[in-house]
Amino acid sequence: MSSSFGTLFRTTTFGESHGVGVGVVIDGCPANLELTESDIQPQLDRRRPGQSDLTTPRDEADRVTILSGVESGLTLGTPIGLLVHNKDQRPGDYGEMNRVPRPSHADYTYQVKYGHSARSGGGRSSARETIGRVAAGAVAEKLLQLHWDIEIVAWVSSIGDVQTEAVDPARVQRSEVDAHITRCPDPTRAETMAETVREVKEAADSIGGVVSCVCRNVPPGWGEPVFDKLEAKFAQAMLSLPATKGFEIGSGFAGTTMLGSQHNDPFVARDGRLGTSSNHAGGILGGISSGEPILFRTAFKPVATIGKTQQTVDFEGRPVELAAKGRHDPCVVPRAVPIVETMAALVLIDAAMRQQAREFPLPSRG
Amino acid sequence: MSSSFGTLFRTTTFGESHGVGVGVVIDGCPANLELTESDIQPQLDRRRPGQSDLTTPRDEADRVTILSGVESGLTLGTPIGLLVHNKDQRPGDYGEMNRVPRPSHADYTYQVKYGHSARSGGGRSSARETIGRVAAGAVAEKLLQLHWDIEIVAWVSSIGDVQTEAVDPARVQRSEVDAHITRCPDPTRAETMAETVREVKEAADSIGGVVSCVCRNVPPGWGEPVFDKLEAKFAQAMLSLPATKGFEIGSGFAGTTMLGSQHNDPFVARDGRLGTSSNHAGGILGGISSGEPILFRTAFKPVATIGKTQQTVDFEGRPVELAAKGRHDPCVVPRAVPIVETMAALVLIDAAMRQQAREFPLPSRG
Amino acid sequence: MSSSFGTLFRTTTFGESHGVGVGVVIDGCPANLELTESDIQPQLDRRRPGQSDLTTPRDEADRVTILSGVESGLTLGTPIGLLVHNKDQRPGDYGEMNRVPRPSHADYTYQVKYGHSARSGGGRSSARETIGRVAAGAVAEKLLQLHWDIEIVAWVSSIGDVQTEAVDPARVQRSEVDAHITRCPDPTRAETMAETVREVKEAADSIGGVVSCVCRNVPPGWGEPVFDKLEAKFAQAMLSLPATKGFEIGSGFAGTTMLGSQHNDPFVARDGRLGTSSNHAGGILGGISSGEPILFRTAFKPVATIGKTQQTVDFEGRPVELAAKGRHDPCVVPRAVPIVETMAALVLIDAAMRQQAREFPLPSRG
Amino acid sequence: MSSSFGTLFRTTTFGESHGVGVGVVIDGCPANLELTESDIQPQLDRRRPGQSDLTTPRDEADRVTILSGVESGLTLGTPIGLLVHNKDQRPGDYGEMNRVPRPSHADYTYQVKYGHSARSGGGRSSARETIGRVAAGAVAEKLLQLHWDIEIVAWVSSIGDVQTEAVDPARVQRSEVDAHITRCPDPTRAETMAETVREVKEAADSIGGVVSCVCRNVPPGWGEPVFDKLEAKFAQAMLSLPATKGFEIGSGFAGTTMLGSQHNDPFVARDGRLGTSSNHAGGILGGISSGEPILFRTAFKPVATIGKTQQTVDFEGRPVELAAKGRHDPCVVPRAVPIVETMAALVLIDAAMRQQAREFPLPSRG
Repeated sequence: MSSSFGTLFRTTTFGESHGVGVGVVIDGCPANLELTESDIQPQLDRRRPGQSDLTTPRDEADRVTILSGVESGLTLGTPIGLLVHNKDQRPGDYGEMNRVPRPSHADYTYQVKYGHSARSGGGRSSARETIGRVAAGAVAEKLLQLHWDIEIVAWVSSIGDVQTEAVDPARVQRSEVDAHITRCPDPTRAETMAETVREVKEAADSIGGVVSCVCRNVPPGWGEPVFDKLEAKFAQAMLSLPATKGFEIGSGFAGTTMLGSQHNDPFVARDGRLGTSSNHAGGILGGISSGEPILFRTAFKPVATIGKTQQTVDFEGRPVELAAKGRHDPCVVPRAVPIVETMAALVLIDAAMRQQAREFPLPSRG
Repeated sequence: MSSSFGTLFRTTTFGESHGVGVGVVIDGCPANLELTESDIQPQLDRRRPGQSDLTTPRDEADRVTILSGVESGLTLGTPIGLLVHNKDQRPGDYGEMNRVPRPSHADYTYQVKYGHSARSGGGRSSARETIGRVAAGAVAEKLLQLHWDIEIVAWVSSIGDVQTEAVDPARVQRSEVDAHITRCPDPTRAETMAETVREVKEAADSIGGVVSCVCRNVPPGWGEPVFDKLEAKFAQAMLSLPATKGFEIGSGFAGTTMLGSQHNDPFVARDGRLGTSSNHAGGILGGISSGEPILFRTAFKPVATIGKTQQTVDFEGRPVELAAKGRHDPCVVPRAVPIVETMAALVLIDAAMRQQAREFPLPSRG
Repeated sequence: MSSSFGTLFRTTTFGESHGVGVGVVIDGCPANLELTESDIQPQLDRRRPGQSDLTTPRDEADRVTILSGVESGLTLGTPIGLLVHNKDQRPGDYGEMNRVPRPSHADYTYQVKYGHSARSGGGRSSARETIGRVAAGAVAEKLLQLHWDIEIVAWVSSIGDVQTEAVDPARVQRSEVDAHITRCPDPTRAETMAETVREVKEAADSIGGVVSCVCRNVPPGWGEPVFDKLEAKFAQAMLSLPATKGFEIGSGFAGTTMLGSQHNDPFVARDGRLGTSSNHAGGILGGISSGEPILFRTAFKPVATIGKTQQTVDFEGRPVELAAKGRHDPCVVPRAVPIVETMAALVLIDAAMRQQAREFPLPSRG
Repeated sequence: MSSSFGTLFRTTTFGESHGVGVGVVIDGCPANLELTESDIQPQLDRRRPGQSDLTTPRDEADRVTILSGVESGLTLGTPIGLLVHNKDQRPGDYGEMNRVPRPSHADYTYQVKYGHSARSGGGRSSARETIGRVAAGAVAEKLLQLHWDIEIVAWVSSIGDVQTEAVDPARVQRSEVDAHITRCPDPTRAETMAETVREVKEAADSIGGVVSCVCRNVPPGWGEPVFDKLEAKFAQAMLSLPATKGFEIGSGFAGTTMLGSQHNDPFVARDGRLGTSSNHAGGILGGISSGEPILFRTAFKPVATIGKTQQTVDFEGRPVELAAKGRHDPCVVPRAVPIVETMAALVLIDAAMRQQAREFPLPSRG
């Protein structure tokens, strides 16, 4: 297990579906930040299931409790412990399920790696694990907003084949994103996406999609070449999320078909510093933020748990028919929006602190 | 700067274009591995420029020297220092160039972050920085081959709009990849790709492409959830390379348009353990290797340095016309092949050692 | 804050005196270890106050709860969250105390570093912070005992001027240590020590002492030169404990007065491998365990909180008289014994896993 | 191996006695620091052997070369590679020596850990390994002096039984330390120490001693509780040095015999902030610098290599007589002075940068 992320703003997550709860310890958050559960709960609420007929009806309250690091509403500079209790603490009695590794789930690889088929172990590969990340990221978001006026907004840019290009990264707001249950701020496409999900749900199947994210007002100079380039940390952060299969910064894969003369972003004078007239770079040059909006996209595969019957084998290799019981999330993408935003915040706050660490005055080079 | 990668097999790179040289320190390589410069030089030779009329004619010998960590042809278990001397050690006299940040280069962001416009600083964002990675990765490849018979093969799967699907990841060999100057093992497309590059070169322009990579014979159980999931480390590794814009594991972005019933990989019995009949996962489930071939793709943008005249501004924001002198690499993708392979090796050897660290016998769970 | 310790068996502690509780997250513990609260509670009970008339009468039950990482009595290989609730969760109302930094406490330095005089922040410098370490160390002890039959025994070797040399590190057991309230296994000196503490207590003063520790059956080969030499990690671990002022391995400071011919430990054949006829090294050579018992000593200063009136100044520099109210621990040394043992266990388990990570077979050197 | 130290100002050392050379990579040094070899060479010269009749006559020039990270005399913010070539690069032909592990050397433990008896591997446990530390520390010292006017001065406070208390930590200068070949700034004792060493040398034996160190002008607020408390990092740094057996901060072991009422350091108003009228704490409270001088002592054992005949056994356990040939350092302590100073600098610069990382303005707590 490697459950810590970040060098200076360090988050360590813990918890499975069937223990006491899931949570996180944030080590390195500066002191004297005003912080209460109400700063954290909103993103947890946006993450939790049961928000619409598109997601699983299970309603987990997911109330966060601050265990440590805060006194009289102010951070102490000490580790901030955050805990969300599980409602169901019974160890999983999955009966036959335990004998069959679910296709495209982590049951088999957890069995090989950890030597047991406990669902709870595999529970670390479930969406519920992200609760700790979201809680920590909400704290990071508050710091980024407070000190740099940074805005992080993610939205659903495609579900299945339904895509949108009608979203302006320079202006899109979370309110527009949340205006539709698909979290697609393009009304003309949002409803089509919803229809797609409903059809898939009807068919006891699932569908994937893409979440786009913009980070605005990030100062130039953040990011640590060469191995912790800013885009490299975003890529690690996004690919560490359950069900992700791809990451693009700026022009992404489409950029590979362009000519350099088309792809290069010419510099222009802007607000006393330099900007670029196009942004194929996605706001990062040489691993360092340029001051332009940071733009990236993350691909989410269709949810592996489906009602449809699947032909597979059990741990002993014996053929079995598998069909998930109960109702399941046909499309996780809308719920992934706050997860992408908060992970982005964890990447940025760490980059900010690492850059600041070296900013003691030195004789400026002529 | 963050110039170290890996937790147990830890590589730290150093060096710019104009200092004494570029190199790497490998800390954590096990003792008693047979190692000489000849184990490292081949991948450096595949990386260096001047290998064909498609790349820049500058011929840098890039001979590696072992500084430490090896005695009588065997590693000592101590840090392995590797150095490649620079031929040209004169500090850059770039004249006017120093006044103008090159579009889509790191000149501007290095200036903001490090407070100087020295090309050498920016030199850390150049392809030359990758020499240390390639040298360290070559050592990792030897360990992976020796102990697990792991094969890592990367190839050019597209340049501009020219793509190939005719490559079989289960069989492709480096010899086939190197059979063509484009490093595309599909003869029918390789020549078209070469033509495309020559046209672009003629136009004093540049073009991007995609490098695919397969890792065969990786045992199941490698990868450290949740933040160091195997695909997350591959994504960080690839996005830490110069000029990369995207990463896909398995089905990637295309997978987002599939239904769960299509995308799920059914398990099948194979060689006494479980395999899958399809591999949309790309060989990783829940961040842990499944035993299936690991498949990923990395997007490279067109080279930013072009001969064509560009309208941009200098550091003071004054409009200038910029046109790179001399001849430049119109397409970096063929040279990226060994870089992708060696970075993949650095990801795998660290995952292998981290997994092994916990493999002391424990009462197996019934 | 830096609240994590260890590279592979990584413990992250959190919690102050006045929050919900104090605890720890253990990341990297192998799966399938039998673990329940009853494995952890005993060392917590040995640590807690109120065990004798020599310590503060406050009786904190300090019951540990496993939050995650364990199912059906077996570890999952996922992060193990452990929590001990605080009885008193009221934010500190210290009145005047808040205006006066207590001499030789961390009040002043926490104020400067974290910008607040909250006692809770300073609470991270109190003995209560060690609860998380002790809980994690108890888990480490179980692994070390189970796989290598390692025995870690610490004892009080001096309080004030009262010292003992009559303890045999090769044989001393925890039962002998706990046989006396001073945790000195030398009956002839234990009572004198107790007398000393009672006199000091009577005088509303405090006294320091030294805790010795032996680690038996540690295999040769553990420890990571050069910066993580085994003695270096023990030194860091011990000096990270509250109230510690010194550390010695083997001959320690006394060894500086010896001649090389006296200090050198000659090798002898023992049980098919090499041992040494003396052990001035303290069981470590060149930062690596030799197979001989590891012996070290840690110095604890007198408790800073005393009933006696002290002349000092408040945060504004105004002279004040300070006298701690209530009753206080006149000597923390007996309670430090389990803390030293568990920190030693955290050092050893991490060294064990780091060594194992590189133990894949290689052609042995002739 | 763990050859890296520091979180933000990160040094990675490499090299044995018989390879091309020994060196270090400094990652994280801020840009635009004026730096040339002449900033580094002086401390290397103070470290090298052959400076007096008290040390081994081998004269190793130990000239440092900057490989990277510096251009036109200014640091680039990129990794600084430093290399000192070895004069003798022949792999060790130690003949019989290779069959016999030298008592109190690392030959045996390196054999067990790394599976070979190569002296070069053991060479990482020799004083020569410290060259990389000293070179990196010299850079750190320049930063500390330039930005905080910090003075770090170490001296020999005892050799064998000859001690001095006549040194004033508040005033002692390196010039006084270097005024005598023993590096003891107390003239009355320095000569006695020299006599002791000469007698020991005459007897083909060796002797140990203690190096004291003071760090002046360290601002209050540095140090990262709880595991990276400032004294904990000093302790790790010192115990990671070859031949060290003990560490004391402030009152050290002597403090354990004091009463709290004697040991506590009362606060006093000083220069607009708080100081203490005594300094038993050694300049650190709760793991954080208090602004008072930081005082610590490090114990060095007698050198293990002696000319006197020793009874020991070879690797197969057969009795042998061992007597080191040639002439050897009878007392390493004077040469340890610059090593202690530079390691202290590495601890302080990292603490400085970690503290600065969190110092972005926050609403101050009322």
